Amino acid sequence: MSAAIYPGSFDPITNGHCDIIRRIQPIFGEITLLLAKSPKKRPLFTVEERIALAEEALEGVPGIRIAAHDGLTVDYLRKTGVRVIVRGLRAVSDFEYELVMANMNKKLSPGVETMLVFASPEYYYVSSNTVKEVAMHGGSVKDFVPPGVAKALEAKFESR
Amino acid sequence: MSAAIYPGSFDPITNGHCDIIRRIQPIFGEITLLLAKSPKKRPLFTVEERIALAEEALEGVPGIRIAAHDGLTVDYLRKTGVRVIVRGLRAVSDFEYELVMANMNKKLSPGVETMLVFASPEYYYVSSNTVKEVAMHGGSVKDFVPPGVAKALEAKFESR
Amino acid sequence: MSAAIYPGSFDPITNGHCDIIRRIQPIFGEITLLLAKSPKKRPLFTVEERIALAEEALEGVPGIRIAAHDGLTVDYLRKTGVRVIVRGLRAVSDFEYELVMANMNKKLSPGVETMLVFASPEYYYVSSNTVKEVAMHGGSVKDFVPPGVAKALEAKFESR
Amino acid sequence: MSAAIYPGSFDPITNGHCDIIRRIQPIFGEITLLLAKSPKKRPLFTVEERIALAEEALEGVPGIRIAAHDGLTVDYLRKTGVRVIVRGLRAVSDFEYELVMANMNKKLSPGVETMLVFASPEYYYVSSNTVKEVAMHGGSVKDFVPPGVAKALEAKFESR
Amino acid sequence: MSAAIYPGSFDPITNGHCDIIRRIQPIFGEITLLLAKSPKKRPLFTVEERIALAEEALEGVPGIRIAAHDGLTVDYLRKTGVRVIVRGLRAVSDFEYELVMANMNKKLSPGVETMLVFASPEYYYVSSNTVKEVAMHGGSVKDFVPPGVAKALEAKFESR
Amino acid sequence: MSAAIYPGSFDPITNGHCDIIRRIQPIFGEITLLLAKSPKKRPLFTVEERIALAEEALEGVPGIRIAAHDGLTVDYLRKTGVRVIVRGLRAVSDFEYELVMANMNKKLSPGVETMLVFASPEYYYVSSNTVKEVAMHGGSVKDFVPPGVAKALEAKFESR
Repeated sequence: MSAAIYPGSFDPITNGHCDIIRRIQPIFGEITLLLAKSPKKRPLFTVEERIALAEEALEGVPGIRIAAHDGLTVDYLRKTGVRVIVRGLRAVSDFEYELVMANMNKKLSPGVETMLVFASPEYYYVSSNTVKEVAMHGGSVKDFVPPGVAKALEAKFESR
Repeated sequence: MSAAIYPGSFDPITNGHCDIIRRIQPIFGEITLLLAKSPKKRPLFTVEERIALAEEALEGVPGIRIAAHDGLTVDYLRKTGVRVIVRGLRAVSDFEYELVMANMNKKLSPGVETMLVFASPEYYYVSSNTVKEVAMHGGSVKDFVPPGVAKALEAKFESR
Repeated sequence: MSAAIYPGSFDPITNGHCDIIRRIQPIFGEITLLLAKSPKKRPLFTVEERIALAEEALEGVPGIRIAAHDGLTVDYLRKTGVRVIVRGLRAVSDFEYELVMANMNKKLSPGVETMLVFASPEYYYVSSNTVKEVAMHGGSVKDFVPPGVAKALEAKFESR
Repeated sequence: MSAAIYPGSFDPITNGHCDIIRRIQPIFGEITLLLAKSPKKRPLFTVEERIALAEEALEGVPGIRIAAHDGLTVDYLRKTGVRVIVRGLRAVSDFEYELVMANMNKKLSPGVETMLVFASPEYYYVSSNTVKEVAMHGGSVKDFVPPGVAKALEAKFESR
Repeated sequence: MSAAIYPGSFDPITNGHCDIIRRIQPIFGEITLLLAKSPKKRPLFTVEERIALAEEALEGVPGIRIAAHDGLTVDYLRKTGVRVIVRGLRAVSDFEYELVMANMNKKLSPGVETMLVFASPEYYYVSSNTVKEVAMHGGSVKDFVPPGVAKALEAKFESR
Repeated sequence: MSAAIYPGSFDPITNGHCDIIRRIQPIFGEITLLLAKSPKKRPLFTVEERIALAEEALEGVPGIRIAAHDGLTVDYLRKTGVRVIVRGLRAVSDFEYELVMANMNKKLSPGVETMLVFASPEYYYVSSNTVKEVAMHGGSVKDFVPPGVAKALEAKFESR
């Protein structure tokens, strides 16, 4: 069975991520969420918090593993023997970023393929960034993230 | 094993198509090229010619089936039990067309997923349309299509 | 009160059109659907059919007028004294077409303003064209168009 | 009469902003410029300076109010009962950002509509950011901003 | 001195074309307008009419030649020894078409370079197609095309 | 002979830059690489290092000058009498940034023209930023940059 990696910051995991995972898991059998330990943008949640929130959100979904990694995604792929990266596409700006990353990854590790799925229409405008911005300003994010993440965002911004 | 459908007009098959098929076949095990019998744009080659050219081009690639279909792609998927559509992405205009089709197909047949792969950089500008235009004006298409297709294009335009 | 024109082919009217009309009517008070009598692309429905389908679909929505016009939209605006054109935006390709039209219309008739609204996510992929294509191939369009339009599409393609 | 909010950083107000305000004011009767008190990007001008520059630039334009706000735009709308947000569109990248914001705002406050107008061609390339960059390097910005803003930019960068 | 080819249908030449020619002529010294004798889309004007309208429009501009050609642009370049193609860019959709053409031409004739210039903001929305559409509906095109072209368009549509 | 400026940060120079320079040098005769002394984003290499790396990479290419500049590019052009800026285009997001800059520069200095060339397909995804990111994570960059730059990147990140 062909496994796949779903890399990202997941800072925090959203309903958009969960929707993509649930849609692609039956295709690939096993999906590894690969969290970037130190993403370029300073994360709001620690890597441990991000893992715990993802675990809670995906409880009961079969075939899911969650791992964290520092460095090039292709290095992780090489180590694990997985050769498919899955990424969600929302907008044209995503498209161009993903095109660059997919080509770069393939050049760095020729056997690697990147496959893309479109975000479902109802999650098209949901991203970790917009969700954090809404929560920071006291807006309700319960339609955009799993309940545990909504609680964690609230706690994070209350304590500020 | 998870099979996939690769739908298109293939009028005619190009090196860009072949590259995508060779890259995704190991992921899905079995790939069915699904030719649209009567694409919106009047095809240059008959459906029989298009099938023969694809067969010749993909000889020796394991796990390939070639079929022709009239009607909605999701109807073919339902009949065969396959639930993954694979499509190649070149440009932003592709992106938007594919987004519409993927959402429409999913609405018409909820279990269906569309997965996208980027064309390799060296085939980014190769499409059936540009290849036909070059051939029509007497330009050489041998870098863009399999040898059998180059010959067929030459014959087609000579006889005009 | 500031009235507005909503021009298009409406060949046929879709749930996406109806959604936009219902959203903008309270803002402008009166909305005139302005059907292009002879759109560039040969229409499937006659202008009388398109008007009847729109009338049925919008029954009960206050402040709606339906008119048909041959020629430049700005000529109709000049005649009626309305100065706002409303258009729905789905994709980036819409964006560029609308940008050209808005600038051209403003140059032809300086007092005219074009205002745009985004299609709701659930209608993002619904257009008269995709709906006609689905119906032509025997797919169900009941989620994309008002009931009267679904029936009319069925009748149109059955009789072929 | 239907009022509208025109939100932004206005750091500082440009001729592009003023053009849009002058074009949409007759449509909505009353326009409230809603300045983000603490925009994501550290502003060059204080909120008081930004308000003063906008007031000077729009002197004599009827129906204009200027307000500053901290938090979600939809919270301000709810408080004031206004339900239309107007935004200017320049480029495709604007398009995607606005699409996300419009959908998010509608989800947070279902009665809210975002309407977009295209920047006039002569202001297509004028933004607060490009204007600040030109001024910082000693270039003349008199064609891009009202006279008071040009003076304020000069003063700001001279004193550095 | 480095000469350049400016290929197109010029059906008819617009103020946008003339603006680009006037801007690039001093850079390349000699510019050849290369008219496609039989463009994909059926032209409104004959090749002789298109040449005559371009000649009249560019009278007095130094270093201009006008030629017509059937076939691949690179074949004409090879024959004349010119190796630069200049094209105007308006929109993102232009961008992608030009990217495909530039790569294809370079592959067909490795020494050839395509250089692009942006249309001036005031001509951003002016194209042969929009101009013909306005004229066909009786709108005034005098701001978009040279006087001789305006007259020719009027005559063409009157006689219909 | 018509000279041209090729402005950028060159932090560091990549094979993509070198490819564009080699392609445009025969057209313009003399190309000046104009390094931004203090680009908006804090550079990895000092201006002296960036110049040295560019010099080494372009050794033997005729007609190349390398200069560094602080301030508006048009000020440098005015001083030197050069009136053509050349820029490479990779993606749609480049397109929009370049459109803004080209229009702004032309407004600030009316005689200036910006000409664009497409990056070659094999360098489409190569940029100074992606190269630095790969090198930072210990990936090999030898296919993307000249040998001297690869060595310098390695040294820079080892010493961290």
